[in-house]
Order: sequence, then C-alpha cells, then structure tokens
Amino acid sequence: MEQKSNIGIWLIGAWGGVATTAAVGLRAIQKKIFPPAGLTTEISDFSSVAWNSWNDFVIGGHEIRRGSFSETAEELIAQNALSREIVTPLLSDLREYDSEICPGLLHHSGKVVEKMASEDFCFFLNESPRQAISRLQRDMQLFVQKKQLAQLIVVNLMSTEPQCAYFQDFLLHSTSQREAKSFGNTADFARCQQEWQNWEKMEKILDDPKCPLPASTLYAIAALDAGYDFVNFTPSLGATPPAVREFAKKKNARCAGNDGKTGETLMKSVLAPMFSHRNLNVMSWVGHNIFGNRDGQVLENQENKATKVASKNHLLEQILGYTPQTLVTIEYIKSLGDWKTAWDHIHFSGFLGTPMTLQFTWQGCDSLLAAPLVLDLVRLTALAKRRNYTGNMDFLACFFKSPLGVEEQSFVRQFEFLESWLDLAKER
Amino acid sequence: MEQKSNIGIWLIGAWGGVATTAAVGLRAIQKKIFPPAGLTTEISDFSSVAWNSWNDFVIGGHEIRRGSFSETAEELIAQNALSREIVTPLLSDLREYDSEICPGLLHHSGKVVEKMASEDFCFFLNESPRQAISRLQRDMQLFVQKKQLAQLIVVNLMSTEPQCAYFQDFLLHSTSQREAKSFGNTADFARCQQEWQNWEKMEKILDDPKCPLPASTLYAIAALDAGYDFVNFTPSLGATPPAVREFAKKKNARCAGNDGKTGETLMKSVLAPMFSHRNLNVMSWVGHNIFGNRDGQVLENQENKATKVASKNHLLEQILGYTPQTLVTIEYIKSLGDWKTAWDHIHFSGFLGTPMTLQFTWQGCDSLLAAPLVLDLVRLTALAKRRNYTGNMDFLACFFKSPLGVEEQSFVRQFEFLESWLDLAKER
Amino acid sequence: MEQKSNIGIWLIGAWGGVATTAAVGLRAIQKKIFPPAGLTTEISDFSSVAWNSWNDFVIGGHEIRRGSFSETAEELIAQNALSREIVTPLLSDLREYDSEICPGLLHHSGKVVEKMASEDFCFFLNESPRQAISRLQRDMQLFVQKKQLAQLIVVNLMSTEPQCAYFQDFLLHSTSQREAKSFGNTADFARCQQEWQNWEKMEKILDDPKCPLPASTLYAIAALDAGYDFVNFTPSLGATPPAVREFAKKKNARCAGNDGKTGETLMKSVLAPMFSHRNLNVMSWVGHNIFGNRDGQVLENQENKATKVASKNHLLEQILGYTPQTLVTIEYIKSLGDWKTAWDHIHFSGFLGTPMTLQFTWQGCDSLLAAPLVLDLVRLTALAKRRNYTGNMDFLACFFKSPLGVEEQSFVRQFEFLESWLDLAKER
Amino acid sequence: MEQKSNIGIWLIGAWGGVATTAAVGLRAIQKKIFPPAGLTTEISDFSSVAWNSWNDFVIGGHEIRRGSFSETAEELIAQNALSREIVTPLLSDLREYDSEICPGLLHHSGKVVEKMASEDFCFFLNESPRQAISRLQRDMQLFVQKKQLAQLIVVNLMSTEPQCAYFQDFLLHSTSQREAKSFGNTADFARCQQEWQNWEKMEKILDDPKCPLPASTLYAIAALDAGYDFVNFTPSLGATPPAVREFAKKKNARCAGNDGKTGETLMKSVLAPMFSHRNLNVMSWVGHNIFGNRDGQVLENQENKATKVASKNHLLEQILGYTPQTLVTIEYIKSLGDWKTAWDHIHFSGFLGTPMTLQFTWQGCDSLLAAPLVLDLVRLTALAKRRNYTGNMDFLACFFKSPLGVEEQSFVRQFEFLESWLDLAKER
Repeated sequence: MEQKSNIGIWLIGAWGGVATTAAVGLRAIQKKIFPPAGLTTEISDFSSVAWNSWNDFVIGGHEIRRGSFSETAEELIAQNALSREIVTPLLSDLREYDSEICPGLLHHSGKVVEKMASEDFCFFLNESPRQAISRLQRDMQLFVQKKQLAQLIVVNLMSTEPQCAYFQDFLLHSTSQREAKSFGNTADFARCQQEWQNWEKMEKILDDPKCPLPASTLYAIAALDAGYDFVNFTPSLGATPPAVREFAKKKNARCAGNDGKTGETLMKSVLAPMFSHRNLNVMSWVGHNIFGNRDGQVLENQENKATKVASKNHLLEQILGYTPQTLVTIEYIKSLGDWKTAWDHIHFSGFLGTPMTLQFTWQGCDSLLAAPLVLDLVRLTALAKRRNYTGNMDFLACFFKSPLGVEEQSFVRQFEFLESWLDLAKER
Repeated sequence: MEQKSNIGIWLIGAWGGVATTAAVGLRAIQKKIFPPAGLTTEISDFSSVAWNSWNDFVIGGHEIRRGSFSETAEELIAQNALSREIVTPLLSDLREYDSEICPGLLHHSGKVVEKMASEDFCFFLNESPRQAISRLQRDMQLFVQKKQLAQLIVVNLMSTEPQCAYFQDFLLHSTSQREAKSFGNTADFARCQQEWQNWEKMEKILDDPKCPLPASTLYAIAALDAGYDFVNFTPSLGATPPAVREFAKKKNARCAGNDGKTGETLMKSVLAPMFSHRNLNVMSWVGHNIFGNRDGQVLENQENKATKVASKNHLLEQILGYTPQTLVTIEYIKSLGDWKTAWDHIHFSGFLGTPMTLQFTWQGCDSLLAAPLVLDLVRLTALAKRRNYTGNMDFLACFFKSPLGVEEQSFVRQFEFLESWLDLAKER
Repeated sequence: MEQKSNIGIWLIGAWGGVATTAAVGLRAIQKKIFPPAGLTTEISDFSSVAWNSWNDFVIGGHEIRRGSFSETAEELIAQNALSREIVTPLLSDLREYDSEICPGLLHHSGKVVEKMASEDFCFFLNESPRQAISRLQRDMQLFVQKKQLAQLIVVNLMSTEPQCAYFQDFLLHSTSQREAKSFGNTADFARCQQEWQNWEKMEKILDDPKCPLPASTLYAIAALDAGYDFVNFTPSLGATPPAVREFAKKKNARCAGNDGKTGETLMKSVLAPMFSHRNLNVMSWVGHNIFGNRDGQVLENQENKATKVASKNHLLEQILGYTPQTLVTIEYIKSLGDWKTAWDHIHFSGFLGTPMTLQFTWQGCDSLLAAPLVLDLVRLTALAKRRNYTGNMDFLACFFKSPLGVEEQSFVRQFEFLESWLDLAKER
Repeated sequence: MEQKSNIGIWLIGAWGGVATTAAVGLRAIQKKIFPPAGLTTEISDFSSVAWNSWNDFVIGGHEIRRGSFSETAEELIAQNALSREIVTPLLSDLREYDSEICPGLLHHSGKVVEKMASEDFCFFLNESPRQAISRLQRDMQLFVQKKQLAQLIVVNLMSTEPQCAYFQDFLLHSTSQREAKSFGNTADFARCQQEWQNWEKMEKILDDPKCPLPASTLYAIAALDAGYDFVNFTPSLGATPPAVREFAKKKNARCAGNDGKTGETLMKSVLAPMFSHRNLNVMSWVGHNIFGNRDGQVLENQENKATKVASKNHLLEQILGYTPQTLVTIEYIKSLGDWKTAWDHIHFSGFLGTPMTLQFTWQGCDSLLAAPLVLDLVRLTALAKRRNYTGNMDFLACFFKSPLGVEEQSFVRQFEFLESWLDLAKER
C-alpha cells in the first residue's frame, strides 16, 4: 500500500450551491455526521478498490462573488435542500474553508455573472490572460505548500459561460460531416483546425489582445500548466480544445469533462437506449426544466442558456442514430429554489405506427445531486494519479452530459467503461 | 446459405389481442402494407444477421373461446389500437388463419378463463393430461404436414393462470436463502427438489389423477416432446420447471420465457440500474397500472393477478441489491381498452439524505407493444435452430420480465447478451 | 361589539398529526411567529366579518395513545412537514397544552387503533357507553371551568373508524331509491328509520349491552348533551344520524361534518363541475393515494379504509348525475411520511366521442392542509354561536368531503353557501 | 311558439381544423350519425330551454387558403382526431359546403398566414378596408338570400393575428390603474380613448390609408353593419373595441368573444378559484403547451404567439387578486398533430408556509374541444336574437378565455351567469 498524503480539492465557484454542498458533505462525512450515501465510489461492487479515505481531502478555491460557505448553506437550508441539523455542527469548519477562497476570473463570463462579482474585482479587470493565469497559479501553489498536498484537483463549478461561439460545437463533435454542417465560414473552420488542435499554436492565443478564451479555459490552463488536474463540471469550454487535453498529457496531469449529468439528461441517457434497442421510433422529445437557484438566474440570460441547452440536447441524436424533433427549455422559477423540476414528454411509435407517450417528472435537488459526483470525480482522479494515468479521463464518461472524447451516450454502457477501467487497473 | 423453408408460428390464445395483432402485423409486413417498424430484429446494428424473411412464417394455433381474428381486430380498432386501414385489406387472410385454429386447454386456468370458454369444451373437460397432450400434438402435427414446415414455434399468449402455488417462486429464484424463506413446509420443499428438477420424475406427475400442472406446462410438454419449440410470453408456469427445460435439450428443441417485457416493467429494468449505479437509495417504488382489455378482465381475479404482480415486482430487488417498499396494482378500467396506462412514483434519497421523486406515466397500447416481441422471438428462435442451439435460450432475457435462468435484470446488460450471442454465432 | 371571552378547542386525537399542527399553528399565530396564512377566514373578501381574534382560543382534548405535542411535532419535522424554526420557540407552550389532554375512548375503533392505545386504558375497557359519556363530560367541564370558557368546540380528529355497517350509507344519502338499493334486509331498514331518526328512540341504544355506537358518536353525544359544539373532521359516524343533529338543535348547540376536504377530493369537487358543465362524459376516474403517516397506517386496515374510500368516492356521482367507473386506492408508503401524493387519471369523451385524458398529481402535506381548516371551522362555529345559530351548520359544506345534509358537491357552489351565510348575517 | 326558419353559420377560416370539425359534427348530428354529445346546450339542466333544432343550421364562410372540408377532415383523421367512420358518409355534404366558401381577408394577419394564402389573393391584395368590407358583405348577403336565412352568425375561427400593438391590452382591461401601467405614451392613450370608444370616431379609421385594423375587426364590422351577429372565437382583436360593441347594439346585432376556452385555460379558470377560496398562496404557475396542428404552426411565429399568451395568462391575476410568477409556453411539436398536451406545474404554500405542488397533464384534441363550443355559441346567439337581446353577450363568458366586458374569471361563476340568463329569459 502506497503512502497516503493530503489531496486538495480546488473549487472554482466555491461559494456556489454545488461547491458549498460538496464542502458541507465532505466535512459531514469526515466528522461522521452523515454516512457517505449517494456516492458512486461507495457502491458495494467497488468495495475492493483502493480508494482514498475521505479524510485525505482538503478544500480551497476561487470565487468571484462576496460571500461565505455558511451564507450559501443558509440559502440552501431555506430552500429545503440542506438540513440545518447537518450544517450547524460544521459552521466553524466552513469558516476555516472560507479563509482559503481567493478572487477568481471573469473573462468572457457574460454580463449576468459580471454583475454578481464583488467590488474587489476592480483590481483585476485589466489583467491579461497571462497575468490571470499567473495569479491563479500563485493562489493554488500557496495552498499546496501550506497544506503540504501531494495532488491538487481543480473542479470548475462556476456558472455556465456564454457559448464560445464558432468552435464549441465543432470541438465537441468533430467528425467531418458535422464540421461541414456547423461551419458556414470555411475560414473560421480552417483557423480552428490549426489553432485549437495543437498546444504550441493555441498557446499563442493567450497573447492575442482580443483573446477569446473564457475563464473556464484559463483556469484549465493555469491548473494543468502547474501539474494540477482539471475537472470541468459545467458546459463551459474548459479543457474542451484538443490542444488543452494534449497539454494535460504533456504535463503529466489529468483532465475530464464536460457538464455533470445529474437529472433530466441522466434520464435521457438511460431512457433513449430503451427506445433504440426496441426499435421504437422517437418522433419528438420535449423537456421543460424549471428551477430557481443562482444557476437558474444566470441561465435566464439567453447567451449563457445556449451553452447549456446544446449540452443537454445532442445526446439523443447520438444514441438514436437519427434526429427526432426536440425541445429543451430551462426557465427560472424563483419559488422552486434549488429544486429542479423537469417534465419530459416523449412521443414515439412502433409496430404498425400507432403513437404512444411516455412522460416523466423529475423533482430533484440540484446541489444534492451534483455534489456527490464532484466528490466521486475527485476520488477517481486521485486514483488515476496513483495509477499514473495522464491526459483526458474518458472512463469518467458516465458522470458527464458531454463526455470529452467519448461518442457513447448510453449511461449503462458508459458505466461499464468505468467498471472496466477499475477492474483492469485493480491493485492487488 | 442454407435452404429456406416455411416456419410455423403456433399461437396459444390465438384470438386474443396480442396474438391477433401479431398475425395482422406479420401479414401486413408480408403484403408490404406496413414496413417492419418497431421490431428489435430490424435495428440497423443487426442488419448483417442472416434473419429469416418475414415471408417464411405461417400462422396456426389453439384457442378456448369462440371467435375469429377479424372479430378481435374489430375490437382493437374500436379501442384505437389497430387502424382499419391496415386491417381491411387483410380480412380474407385472417379468415384463412381462422381455419387453422383448434380448441385449446383449460387445465388449472382459473374460473374467469373457464367462463370465457366456448361450449365446445364439453367434449374435452374430462381429458387426462396425457390425453390432452396427445390431442395438442395431433393438431400441431397436422399443421406441420399440411404446411410442410421445417420448424414449429409454439408461443404461449393465453391469459395469465393462477399461481401454481407452492413451487413457482422456488423455481424462479432457487437459492438456498430464498428457499428457506418461501417454504414453511419442508416436506413440500423436498418433494419439489425431487420431482421438478428431473424429467424422469416429473413425467410421472402426468399420471397423477390430481396432476397440478396447468395448461401452460402441458402445452410446453406437448410441443417439446414433438420436437417443437416453446416460448412462454406470459407469467404462467410454462417451461419454468428445470425438468422441462432439461427435456427441451433432450429433444433437440428450444424454449424461452417468461412474460414479455413491454411497458412498466421494461421501464423498471431500464431505470433501476440508474439508481443502483448512482448509489441513490430507492425508498419506495409504487406502480399503478390501469387498462381495459380481456387480459385486464382476467387479472381482475385475485388468483390470476398474483402471478402477474409477482412477475412485475421481483426485479427491483435483483437490480438494487436490497428491498425497497414496493406496491404494484393492476386494475381493470374498461374505458381504456388496450391502452395500458402506468403511473410510477419512485421515492429516493441520496447525498445527505434529502428525499427526491421521479414519476412517470406510460401510455402504451399493450397489443402493439407485445406483438412485435412475439415476432422477434420467433425469428430469433428460427435462427437458434439453424445454429443448432438447444435448450433454454437465455440470450433472450431482454424480452422477458422473468427471464428463465438469468439473474441479470438490467435491460441494457440483457441486451448486450443478445448482441453478444448474435455476434459470436454470426454466419459469414 | 359584544364582550369577548375565551373559547376552547377540544381536540379528539389531540396528539395526532392534524391536531398537533393545528395547536402549533394557532400558537405560532398568537405569538406572531407566523402570519395567519392559508386560512379561509382570513381572505380579503371576508375582512369585514367580525371574527374572533386568534388570541381568544385555548386548547385541550382527548387522546388514546401515550405521547405529547412535541413528540408528534418532532415526527412532523422529520417528515419535512413542520419546520423546526416554528416549533422550537413553542415547546413550553406545547408542554402546557399536554397537561390538558385526557384519556379518550376506544369503542368500535377497530383493532389497529386499539393496538396503538396506551396501557392506561385497562381502567376504562369495561366502561358502558353511559359511563364513557359521563367521564368525557367531566373532563370537558373541568377544562371549561378552569379556563373560564364561554364556548367549547369539540373537533373529532381521531383515526377513521371501521364503517358502522348497515346504516352509514343510508343516513348519508337517504333518498327512497337509494334506500331500496342498499338495504337488502327490510327489517334493518325499518329499524334504522325508527331508531336513528329520532333522539328519544336513539338514546335507548346507549343502554343496549351490544350498543353499536362508535367512539365518534359517543364524543358527539357527550359534547352536545353538555351544550358544547361538535365538528366531525373525519369520515367516522360522529353526528351523522339525524337524531343526533336534532339533539344538537334541542341543546342549543351546533354540529358539522363529515371528513375534512383537503386534497384529492377537493380536486374532485373542483374538477367534476367542469366536466359536467361542458357535457364531457367522464368514462372513468381513477385516484391512487399514497402516504406514510399514522392515518395511513390505520387505513392499511381494510375495515377502516372502507369508510374513507366511501367518503372520497360518492361525490362524483352527485356532481355528474351518472356513475362513471371509479377506483380509489389509499396505500401506506412509509417513506412519504405526511406527504400525501395523489395521482388521478380522468378518462373522458366529448364531441364525436374521441377519448381524452386529464391526469393530475397532488403533492401536499396532509397535516398542513387539514390544520387550517380545523381553525377555520372553529372560528366559524364561534361566529355561529354569537349569531344564535343552532343545529347542523350546513353552510360549512365547502370544508367537507361528505357534508351533512347537503347534496351540492361543487366546491365553488358550496363556497357560495358560505359567502351567502356570512353576508346575510353580517354584523354591522 | 315562434315560426322556425334557417340560420346561417358563417365560418371565418372555414377549412381550418375547428371549423371543419364543427361542420362535420353538425352534419353528423343532423344525419343522426352521432348523438349531440359534448355540447353544453344539451345538458339535462337546460332541457326545458326552447333551443333551435340542429336541423335549423346551414354552413358557409370565408377562407384564405386553397383546400376543402374533406381535405382537412382527412388530415384530422390521420391525426386520430376525427374518425373515418363519421366522415365517410358525409363526403358529399362536405363538397356542397365547399361551394359556399369565398375568399377571405389578409389585413394584418402576419407573414405566416400570408404565406399560407392561396394565389387567388393577388386580386384582393390592394383592397382598402372599405372595399374589403363591401366584398365580405356581398358574399354573406348572397348566401342569406340563396338559403333564405332568418339570421346569419359569423364566427371567427381564423389563425391568431399578431397583437394589435398599443391598444389591445388597454381595451381588455380598461381600469385607470392598468391604463397608467400599460401606456408609456400618453399621446397613444389619449388617441385610444377618443377613437376606439365611440363608433363615429372609430369609423373614420377605415379611411386612413394606414388603417391598423386587422382582418378580424373588418369581419366584425362587415357582419354587424349588415345586421349579422359576430362571435370571436380567437384572441384576435375582432369586436374588442368598445366602439364596435356599441355599433352591434345600434345595428340590433349581437357580438361575443374572445378566444374559446378549451383546455389549459379552462383548467386555470377552474383551479385558480380553489387556491383563492382556500387562501393558498400560488407562488408560481408554469404552463407548457405543445401541439402540432396548423394553429401551432402560426403560433410558432413570435408576434402571433404574443396575442395568444396574453389571452392565456391574465386570468390568474384576476382570480387570485395578486400576481404569481407565471410562465406560458406554446410550442409546435409536429408529431402531436391536433392533440394538445399541456403540463402545468403549480407551486403553492399555505398554512405555516411549506411549499406544495399540483401538476396536471391535459391531453385533449383541440378541434374536438373547440368545435362543440362553436355550435353552442351559435345556438345561444340564435336564442338571444329570438329574445331580442342586442349588443355584447356577456352571459357567454364561460365559453371564452378573455370574455369581453366581464371581470369574473371563475368558470363555475361564469357558468352561473349563463344559467341565470337562461332562467330569467325562459320562454313559458
């Protein structure tokens, strides 16, 4: 058995709902206030895996708003998401965590997010990408030294950024047919091929005064460049460009993403294979999502929402092999707070063509569904490092709506990738 | 390529809704009135398999009611299940099919079914099991000769029988712990072990004047003994006893079952793995089913319903590894006709214990969901014979609620069994 | 303005969920911890009515279990029904209320309820009805004296009793046609007519050693005989017999009932008039109710459940004028606690006969829906006394599933009865 | 008893789904192919009213597309809305109806509708409002003469027009507070007050070369000016301006509107009073509507959709007395055809503030729900004429989403207006 040492979880968007719930939950498990329920790494089939103990992990991060873990926890309690019984005994721990949270980035985060930012940001508004990366790295390195960490895992949990226009879709699904469809402008396409596929070329974008790289990608570069790991739990760009993933490998670091699969999309990746295997023709799939947390407020903004809807929508086509009419709405309904309610209406036909219907309503608490995935991803990334795995962790596909580098979208098959990786690499 | 020749589909319960829809659908495909949609054997991934053409199949069967295919088709049209446009051009074909339907069996079918029986049954009421088997075999052999068939596949589609009390559950899940639980009476248990596990011993039950074997098992024995295949699409006993499955192998025949997985249970076998893989604790799973076809009328009777509910309920425990509180109701609501509506309410908790909810409503046309599975099963059984496969066809698990000899209940994994069998045995 | 004085609320089943919520809520309003939201008597249209202040009311009652208000409140907090923030500042008040709770009755309450009873009941098990009534009256009179009350309003909130077999249905719907149908035995019918219609005759039943009167009716008689008011919030017999209602009038007291209309049945009384006024033919109405509180445990018992189902079912026929196929199930699902979830499926047809569907899911917290009605009924009963109204308060129909003496079942029309009574009698 | 004579139903948008279903249904009733089910005027409570016989009515109309009744009926059959059994025996009647359909108007109907228009419209594109009105009147008068009609009732069933920008909302809800809110521009407001309130002033708009009056209002003016009645079954402007309603009275004609209340909004007007009377605080009400008929295609267009959403949304505020957060979406999902599916999620809180949820799913066939209302409105308008009623028929409020001149939005109370009018005016 190798020597254990501390592992840092570096939360981007640390005082947001998901990050706060992850921090509260981790500490509750460490202090045995609540058992480690709802975590994939804790299922009995995986009991022989040499996981890190939950006690190995410590928490720091970046944030752009004023606030504190306890303030956000209080909001979540008011929304019936967290229970006061769990939070109260952790208040002093949360205050300690607060002291490790540093000011984050706002590059291309969109107007809604900018408005939420703390005034302290006047100091950083004119930072160039290079300067920003250096600052982020200083913050992370200080934390690593102070806590004497063997590994730092950066998890992006900030609000969804506006879609990084012309290349996002291309990079997610880069097959020649799709390229042709999504690129009206051949010049753009050519530029993408050159710049985003290769790290040496892409790095130069950082010096471009009009550098289009959003905060999520700057975080990824800062982390990987310092040899830290990067997990993108949002649909923002992050480590999506092939060049960034290549860079991870070069730096002996790990990356994963995009967009944690928690509710309606998880259901899609579970149900669509049923229709496919039974040869039932999905004529239309409508999904209406309503919720009222901060994430919802940001998604009220059309440009941020576009990124999210794209991430929720493409997998049906990938599973079914054809394109049914789809509709995805995400609407901010204040009274729901963190409780995301999704209604899906699936209209299908089969033998002799008669139309039939499946409807479902999902009523889940967003932060509580997302936070355990964050902890699972961190624990799996720690295992990957011990196994000397580097680069994009495609075996984590079952955790993501848009898994980088993976075409398979059936949840059970993605889960088999994970089982298979755990098995092959099992320490004996 | 081997020489093609005709294959008989012998429908038990021929003028019921599912059998009629299968007959109408097969003929519609043969006459190119409707494309072969909604059939698993027609998915593009399986396009390289050397399937029989749909034109290879002909139809006969047994029935205990007076009636005709066109009469039942008319009922299904009135219930918006079949469309008149499809049925009308097939009326003369259906009349021809009618002439191949012979009187069936009523042994231990329960009072509701007995009441439905045609008066012609006065001739057969005192038949011993041996006599009944001989009669069934004569009917089938005549059909085989007349149509010059290379293979006959018997598919049990009759109404659910009352539960064959003390051994059904034992045989389905025979592990030592479960045995202990379900058998209060050790004498019964010992008898089961001896009689139902071995064909030579079991055969003697046929001579018992109080022979407890229900019609479904007599059909199975009659078919297998004559070298024909037997597929049990219902939860009735059929070929469940290990002795019967052993007998199939001995006779170079094939069997499969139990209980076609069409709606709510299909959903369970698709959704439960999601909860399991995500370590979400299912606290309760309630399923209410309402429908108004003849099957529903039979299930109004408590003893017949028990067989069905047992078949719908056990798989959750098998997938989840623990026993949530479950409730399954099946109620006859006349106005719904063949449209089965299921409402399921799944109450689960995960990280930090907050309860969440998934509800779904399934509105499907029972006959239209079941009939294509019948045709798929027949086509797969024909392929199995060409590949010299004998005995229980466990690779068909994805088609059944209670697959014989298979513990795996996750639909996608069961489907992988099928893929794997098709692949390994692929003719090139 | 008349002189104000205290009014007692005497809760039967005081430590049950509804009574505890009513007690907590009343005290929270009195201490201004929560505003008087969700109360019908507080709607702005009624702001000119001379209501009693909430401060006028004090609480006592009967109970058959061991327990306390705070114990039950703790259970409701664990079920996410009550919030700890509201309960904690009231704990000493609840302890004071506890001291006013006396042992209740168990006559014909059914086995499930008997099992729940405290051991203290060994002292009372052989009480005759007359003795029981005297004891109840002593308890209430002591409370009235101690608190110097101007009025005592007894509210029956105990678990549903088994159906008081042969007369319940008759008394609820006594029209000659219905009589004919429900009474096979003419002798029984004649006896009912004689005994239950007239107080002098009915009173003699109390001396019958096999007296069939259940606890709810003994409570009613005890209260009314002492000049106190009686409100039956359950479907138990209570003051249903015409003789008891006549007795109320004679004693210058008031009575009301039966069965608070809180969730699924409220919806029925709101939706059914829509189908009726639009001449849409309701073919079937299926309602499945699941919940997991103590009431649910009692209703697990078939004989107690029958009383409830009858109360939930009859109103459709009364509103529609014909009898669609109906199905009502009530099932105990532990994980749901006090959260009653109802799924209703309404199948209807209209112009040219095409079937259409309305489904609804109601997710409400039973105690929180019922408790404000209790407070409203008490406040309205107090007003009725000041207006010298005596006998059955039929203007309260909108609060009940089976309003005594009222045929109208449309909720909005029932509400108009209340508006009209408030208006006519308005104090100026 | 007065002398009976024929009454014309003049359908605007005659070959649309609702109009075709009304025509088919009327003829099916006249030929006794189907009983008059699903009609409000046929409920047993109204059996003593001296209704016109359905045989009294004949059909003509205007349309802007090429087509025929049988073509549209065929579409509705393909969508499982109409049944072929009903349509087939009426085909020759429908052909006869076709010969009475004349080219309609396109003024301010929006681009989507213009694209649907037949090429024949090149002849009419430069018509001034005055010319258009004359043409419409000639068409109607010819029909009246030919069929020797005693009355002509014009029913607007054409697709929803874009919102007639600055005055629509003002006219619907003209109270001083609302005026202040909706009119930023005081000049516009002043102009409205002057021009649209008084017929003499408004008439002059017809001569304005930039006349903003949409087709629906020109139809209304044409009809009323000729002494015919006008019923606006859509949310378009129609007879909304007070000046037009005043004009109806002056001409001894009748008008009614707006927007037939068939599905989700009917539900709102039935459910909202429940929340209001129970003092349950509606925090949010979300309604998602999906359907795939021609109406849906038109509403795909944002400007047409705005008119519809406004009509569906305002009534909650009117019933509840406050403004919950609301969201109404209407989306075109082709596969659904005429089957409108609405999912509503109502989030409310009551006693002690705990949030609760009501969800419903309405699956109705749009044309079949709307068509009987058209026939009921026509029959009631015929009765109104016999009773010498003139002007706006406010007693028809229960049929409309936005009843002209009526503040009451509770369906049951609106229905009581109808009952009361029928009663008061009953012929004896």
